[in-house]
Amino acid sequence: MKIARPIQALIDSFQKLPGVGPKSAQRLTYYLLHVPQMQLDEFSDAVSRLKKDTKLCSVCKNVSETDPCPICSDTSRDHSQILVVEEPLDILAFEKTGKYKGIYHVLHGAINPLENIGPDEIYIQALLDRVKNPDREVKEIIIATNPTMEGEATAMYLMRQVRGEGSKVKVTRLGMGIPTGADLEYADEVTLTQALEGRREL
Amino acid sequence: MKIARPIQALIDSFQKLPGVGPKSAQRLTYYLLHVPQMQLDEFSDAVSRLKKDTKLCSVCKNVSETDPCPICSDTSRDHSQILVVEEPLDILAFEKTGKYKGIYHVLHGAINPLENIGPDEIYIQALLDRVKNPDREVKEIIIATNPTMEGEATAMYLMRQVRGEGSKVKVTRLGMGIPTGADLEYADEVTLTQALEGRREL
Repeated sequence: MKIARPIQALIDSFQKLPGVGPKSAQRLTYYLLHVPQMQLDEFSDAVSRLKKDTKLCSVCKNVSETDPCPICSDTSRDHSQILVVEEPLDILAFEKTGKYKGIYHVLHGAINPLENIGPDEIYIQALLDRVKNPDREVKEIIIATNPTMEGEATAMYLMRQVRGEGSKVKVTRLGMGIPTGADLEYADEVTLTQALEGRREL
Repeated sequence: MKIARPIQALIDSFQKLPGVGPKSAQRLTYYLLHVPQMQLDEFSDAVSRLKKDTKLCSVCKNVSETDPCPICSDTSRDHSQILVVEEPLDILAFEKTGKYKGIYHVLHGAINPLENIGPDEIYIQALLDRVKNPDREVKEIIIATNPTMEGEATAMYLMRQVRGEGSKVKVTRLGMGIPTGADLEYADEVTLTQALEGRREL
């Protein structure tokens, strides 16, 4: 195989990305050979500055250019409500709905004993500190971790920690049930059970 | 939507790549936030140097660090046989077989009147010059353009150009037919017709 080293280097870099196999990495690299150097420079710059020009918000741990982040410094939002997510990307999903006016907390992961990720490896203590801080007047924590084993374990752990401290803060979990547009016929038993349990009076 | 600018910049860059939609671009970008800066620097470097550190081989137009490229300067290969491909990536596919010992010519595209790509926009003249050059002693041109409308048109054009110059160079086209492992039941008519026409005595 006689691939020029600069080409092989980029193929290797692409292959380290999730969901990019050897074939896609080759295709992307050879595509970039046809692109103007200016676009390559922009791309290269964006990669190298991604982490250099961003930091974690000291309040909510979201990735931001400023500290505190624009959401935490927005006084028009309801600072008594904290929505807890696993990843910064999850915040985008909620912001897109336009319905949530509270603030956030990013755990940067979920408890996963199989991968040696315990409560101390993610930003759980930072959340507990926010809740305990009387200046912040937190009234509700909405746990929006993923409905996976790890997400559920993290939700349970969080709930116990907040309850255990005798805090009067309300702890809620996102509603579970049938997603819009789904076909009941193909819904799994767990989802249907949760939809039944979570039924609401009309 | 409150996405930090350095994050949005990288999402935009990823989205310019073929087959990468807005969701994948977001996923890749947020993945890179968890990666060490060293890996980002390597990636960034590989992108910016991709074209700076490579050139087109003056003989075969393959992308290479050296001119002529390692294949063209390999005296153990058969320089009388030229395999003509559309893209540098196609060379990799042939090199992987380990069965081809001749050299290559990369057209960098195919004739495509709908996109205003005529014979002069791709490296056809360079190939004709190689064929005409008595020093090169070319005996056979194997046309391995893609079996698409554009690839076939390019193959026909190339054949006519070589023939038109009264050259004694043999012009061949890759064999067409059933690919290994395919199911006859699902083969299309054109492929089956070509497989019949290209049948060989056992």
